[in-house]
Amino acid sequence: MIRTLEVALGDRAYPIHIGQQLLADPRWYQPHIRGRQVMIVSNETVAPLYLAQVEQALTGYQLARVILPDGEEYKTLEVWHRIFDSLLCNRFSRDCTLVALGGGVVGDMAGFAAACYQRGVDFIQVPTTLLAQVDSSVGGKTGVNHPLGKNMIGAFHQPRAVIIDTDTLNTLPDREVSAGLAEVIKYGLIRDPEFFAWLEVQMLSLRARNGAALAAAIERSCRNKAEVVAADERESGQRALLNLGHTFGHAIETGMGYGAWLHGEAVGVGMCQAADLSCRLGWLGAADRDRARDLIAAAGLPTAPPKELTPQTFRDLMAVDKKVQDGRLRLVLLQGIGVSLVTGEFDLAKLDETLNQA
Amino acid sequence: MIRTLEVALGDRAYPIHIGQQLLADPRWYQPHIRGRQVMIVSNETVAPLYLAQVEQALTGYQLARVILPDGEEYKTLEVWHRIFDSLLCNRFSRDCTLVALGGGVVGDMAGFAAACYQRGVDFIQVPTTLLAQVDSSVGGKTGVNHPLGKNMIGAFHQPRAVIIDTDTLNTLPDREVSAGLAEVIKYGLIRDPEFFAWLEVQMLSLRARNGAALAAAIERSCRNKAEVVAADERESGQRALLNLGHTFGHAIETGMGYGAWLHGEAVGVGMCQAADLSCRLGWLGAADRDRARDLIAAAGLPTAPPKELTPQTFRDLMAVDKKVQDGRLRLVLLQGIGVSLVTGEFDLAKLDETLNQA
Repeated sequence: MIRTLEVALGDRAYPIHIGQQLLADPRWYQPHIRGRQVMIVSNETVAPLYLAQVEQALTGYQLARVILPDGEEYKTLEVWHRIFDSLLCNRFSRDCTLVALGGGVVGDMAGFAAACYQRGVDFIQVPTTLLAQVDSSVGGKTGVNHPLGKNMIGAFHQPRAVIIDTDTLNTLPDREVSAGLAEVIKYGLIRDPEFFAWLEVQMLSLRARNGAALAAAIERSCRNKAEVVAADERESGQRALLNLGHTFGHAIETGMGYGAWLHGEAVGVGMCQAADLSCRLGWLGAADRDRARDLIAAAGLPTAPPKELTPQTFRDLMAVDKKVQDGRLRLVLLQGIGVSLVTGEFDLAKLDETLNQA
Repeated sequence: MIRTLEVALGDRAYPIHIGQQLLADPRWYQPHIRGRQVMIVSNETVAPLYLAQVEQALTGYQLARVILPDGEEYKTLEVWHRIFDSLLCNRFSRDCTLVALGGGVVGDMAGFAAACYQRGVDFIQVPTTLLAQVDSSVGGKTGVNHPLGKNMIGAFHQPRAVIIDTDTLNTLPDREVSAGLAEVIKYGLIRDPEFFAWLEVQMLSLRARNGAALAAAIERSCRNKAEVVAADERESGQRALLNLGHTFGHAIETGMGYGAWLHGEAVGVGMCQAADLSCRLGWLGAADRDRARDLIAAAGLPTAPPKELTPQTFRDLMAVDKKVQDGRLRLVLLQGIGVSLVTGEFDLAKLDETLNQA
């Protein structure tokens, strides 16, 4: 069964197709490709597994490919530059389309290249990790990291389509499944308590890669994401709620060196810290804080930050977050399971307690 | 006298202020700065002359500055990266404003950094060369060069305001005045025959830097540009006419090595070539072709391409132009003084004649 959702963004609206055996089927690509030139951007891990299928689907186009090294530590301006080398060596014009085949790093870099090549060309997301399928491939956030801050250089650029082939999860390492589940849990925590309760029941099935459970979790996650993005494309309001755990998490990723922790792992810890702080502020009950932490742990994720990261370093790294306004740190915090807010109005001493207790 | 034009782009509309003694006056900046943090981006030539005045105008803000090397050869991703280093070292947040103080290279790089820093922050253009004042600071085209093609990496990102202080032209080398006049002449050629005739009369005064003549030429140029941009912000139609001479010109700049020729010089030659080709196609009379070439020569600009560039190299470099569609080269050509069109429907043998006759 193929499920199709729509991200309702007016003239930039696009479909998300979710199902099995989509990769090699031209029907999912062709309606979204305007010219004759298609550049596939992938990485060294994913290309040997799935590139041939995608190339088969794109028979008849002028095809080129660029294969990037795999890992968050390569999400840099320098590696990004290679995509342009390839586009220009192949004389790709403004009516070309980029296809991002891989996880969040590939999607973010290919999407950002599409945003900037000749000031903007089309791209299609073909996410192959759970994390990219439930989060980063939808919504148009693209970019690269800077040594001093994650995702600090980027653009909003919506894809023309998102093609999610759940068969690709069969080759995903367990650690990456857990990392993807962090973003799945996030939707439950910030706005979908019914989904959170369902996840509490289904977590073992999900980690065992039950196909029906995974497909349902992906669809529900994408539906949540699509609703938020359609209401606030450029993050002037509620879209910021999608960053639950991310300000803490980005500090872990930047502080430990990109690639040491998976993004989802860092977000898992960050959500525990956000729940802990919310509880210390008296906004979230201890029972709900524990439910959040227990589900994150059940997903196979860490719940405490790395010992190497001192509270002082944590605070310094959090100070460059994109949600800082007029010098004030703003965080996504919880008032219940499924009830969240963005605020800079909290007691910084309580934040110190959260950072110190780890 | 201060003249103010408006670029009518709905919620992204912005003013262009033109006059003397604007640089050091806070009134032109303050209404367009939302936060407290302001980063001035300038270059090694302009900063010693004008940075102090701009900093005086911005007293009271948290100020930082980044000074780039001067020249088209530094309009690269590597140099662009330094702007982010400075923004992050100073912990600038998403409500900061960049001020581009300099010529087209500074404006393009600062504007592109503003487009991408934290996925988009505000910026103000303070152009100090004639070319930047009449063309590149208005309209939101930003970007950097790639070794294989000019302006191939970039974004559309409109400034919050353009502040044109004509006093800055007093320190501009003659060669740069001529380069700026190329873009001034362009408006006459593509859409404003009355302005073209006025330029034929005023060219000596303009090169002698008569203040009233320059102010009038700048205002008329900005008015032409603002009208075109307001009608077609993203270049899906008539905005492409602004590229008269640019496909030829970019080939010269790329082929000779960025910085060897000034952009305006290359565009001057390119407009002569476009007029020559238009004449060979029977679309433009020989008298009008000569008027175009004579005015370009009178501006102190070259009218023939460098001998080092063979016709074959020219064609190869033109093949990566942003106006290429489905493999077909498209050019801006003339049907009269003030009458232009974008077309891929022309006899390529005639293009060869134009390239060979130089």
